[in-house]
Amino acid sequence: MDKNRYCVIMAGGIGSRFWPISRNARPKQFLDILGTGKTFLQSTFERFCRIVPVENIMVVTSESYRNLVAEQLPLVPESNVLLEPYRRNTAPCIAYATYKIESINPDAVVVVAPSDHLILNEDIFIETIESAFEYAADNEVLLTLGIKPTRPETGYGYIQCNMSRFHNVNGNTAYSVKTFTEKPDLELARVLVESGEFLWNSGIFVWNVKTIMSELEAKLPDVASLFEKGRSHYYRESEHSFIADIYETCQSISIDYGVMEKTDKAWAFKASFGWSDLGTWDSLYIQSEKDGNGNMLKGENLMLSDVDGSIVLSEEKNKLVTVSGLHDFMVVNTEDVLMICPRDSKSFKAVITDLAISDKTKFQ
Amino acid sequence: MDKNRYCVIMAGGIGSRFWPISRNARPKQFLDILGTGKTFLQSTFERFCRIVPVENIMVVTSESYRNLVAEQLPLVPESNVLLEPYRRNTAPCIAYATYKIESINPDAVVVVAPSDHLILNEDIFIETIESAFEYAADNEVLLTLGIKPTRPETGYGYIQCNMSRFHNVNGNTAYSVKTFTEKPDLELARVLVESGEFLWNSGIFVWNVKTIMSELEAKLPDVASLFEKGRSHYYRESEHSFIADIYETCQSISIDYGVMEKTDKAWAFKASFGWSDLGTWDSLYIQSEKDGNGNMLKGENLMLSDVDGSIVLSEEKNKLVTVSGLHDFMVVNTEDVLMICPRDSKSFKAVITDLAISDKTKFQ
Repeated sequence: MDKNRYCVIMAGGIGSRFWPISRNARPKQFLDILGTGKTFLQSTFERFCRIVPVENIMVVTSESYRNLVAEQLPLVPESNVLLEPYRRNTAPCIAYATYKIESINPDAVVVVAPSDHLILNEDIFIETIESAFEYAADNEVLLTLGIKPTRPETGYGYIQCNMSRFHNVNGNTAYSVKTFTEKPDLELARVLVESGEFLWNSGIFVWNVKTIMSELEAKLPDVASLFEKGRSHYYRESEHSFIADIYETCQSISIDYGVMEKTDKAWAFKASFGWSDLGTWDSLYIQSEKDGNGNMLKGENLMLSDVDGSIVLSEEKNKLVTVSGLHDFMVVNTEDVLMICPRDSKSFKAVITDLAISDKTKFQ
Repeated sequence: MDKNRYCVIMAGGIGSRFWPISRNARPKQFLDILGTGKTFLQSTFERFCRIVPVENIMVVTSESYRNLVAEQLPLVPESNVLLEPYRRNTAPCIAYATYKIESINPDAVVVVAPSDHLILNEDIFIETIESAFEYAADNEVLLTLGIKPTRPETGYGYIQCNMSRFHNVNGNTAYSVKTFTEKPDLELARVLVESGEFLWNSGIFVWNVKTIMSELEAKLPDVASLFEKGRSHYYRESEHSFIADIYETCQSISIDYGVMEKTDKAWAFKASFGWSDLGTWDSLYIQSEKDGNGNMLKGENLMLSDVDGSIVLSEEKNKLVTVSGLHDFMVVNTEDVLMICPRDSKSFKAVITDLAISDKTKFQ
């Protein structure tokens, strides 16, 4: 495998989105919610192992998840686990990984990906990333993987492509990006999908380190200069204390807002490998296997009657769970939390908000 | 207190009606479902202590509940706890208590009552029982307490009174019974209540032992003759093995069907002390205190949003229970069972039936 290829897996999210299965101490990327036998992080790692040398795979996570990463990814050496002492959104996370990689390989071409997404067709995914690597290695571009929309989804951001400015790359197409669009309402989503110009923003990036460094320096000079100073620390004992120092004062900003929306080097690599960010219970429901009544079920000792379109999930093996008369609901039972809630995102968000302002935050 | 007065508390029911709070091993009468600080059995016992000498209070229960009775009613001597080796409905239970009481006091006048009913106005209850005792002591009558209906309830049996054949007893009225009516549908229930002739059948009886004995002998001679043979065993060491023997072959039949519906000595003692048999979750809901949204709540760490007309009950103190978007539902969470079900009796009964025919009967 090409020694210049690197992968940065972002695994720092705290994820209340699958509460109460995901918890502050056990976020989504460390869970096997789909029952595949692997956690999201492990699946992501194994996917990239097929195209990136294992010693070139880096994982960025929070200090508090250090042990979870070590347990779940024993093949990743300690020096490849980048520990963030504070949550500072994606731009600092990417800057840290970029400058560290560049310190040992200035010719690196890097794929940056979240750790908790669902990829349905791994072969197409691998083939797409291969093409993107190839294109990004030789071009001054910030590639973002844009997924061909299959429905007017309101849960994703969209990328508008410049349809007259594109390159063909091994049968794939890279479009120059016109605009990034926030999550639309349903009516707008329909318009975007029908126009044929818009792709879902997957949050997966491919670029060479020189290009992303120069764009970080141009668009986020304060952030860039902090990590630039780390050259003498990366891969040394002092890395940890250096990072602790600069993260404290580092701006918290996303790579999308800080760089992608401002650069003229953004290109969207059109892809269709069956993707979901599994960012909501509802998106998990859509992607999951269901019984004849459209229920997503997980757990032992479940008894359902007149239940459809629902998620029923129990982690307590020795508990009988009987559910009757629910339609489009969620029943999620863990050892210390029971949540019963309509399946729509609005109802779920209300629960999360109620919890956050309650005196029961220890259950977050 | 009058030494001839006796009380028989029937506490043998297995009660799946409040499942999963009530269980085969822990039926309703041994629970404090209303949160009063006393179980139903204890409340029943304490009520009768006001009018019957404590040494004259007998409790009939199943052998498997012997320890529960001993724990909850330490004042009742062992010889007053009548243990049934098999479930044989109310007629054998009443025959056993009757013949045993008669063996030491042929002048006894007895009130027989279930152990798991709700009495709202205890003073009126006591005063009614006093009157009934007085009337039954000197008359050859089988008194059944008939409750003046306050709504067209479909969950109770009704007693039709002969409005032209009655006696006044200390301001109370005893009517000769015309018929006993099974639980009616709503339309019929309305007719019965409007007619003014019908009372709810409470299942509380008052009579003197001579009268009930002669009626048992006349209407249920097989049952009567079995217990008649016990004269030399009651209050002796051999009682237990004697009872074990005869219960095995004894007919299983209710006192209503076996005696009350067949005798010409049935009289209904009209009462209005605020009564419920609390025979269903719905009847418990009706009688319970509710929050501003009409929810009956019990448990710690409950978080509700957009929930009304519902029962939410959790026995797990350290578990957070969040419920949203439910109307007229029940959520009952115990250590090893979670039930989510519409509040109506039909849905609940379907759950109980499903459970009975499932491979999960250990949760009954």
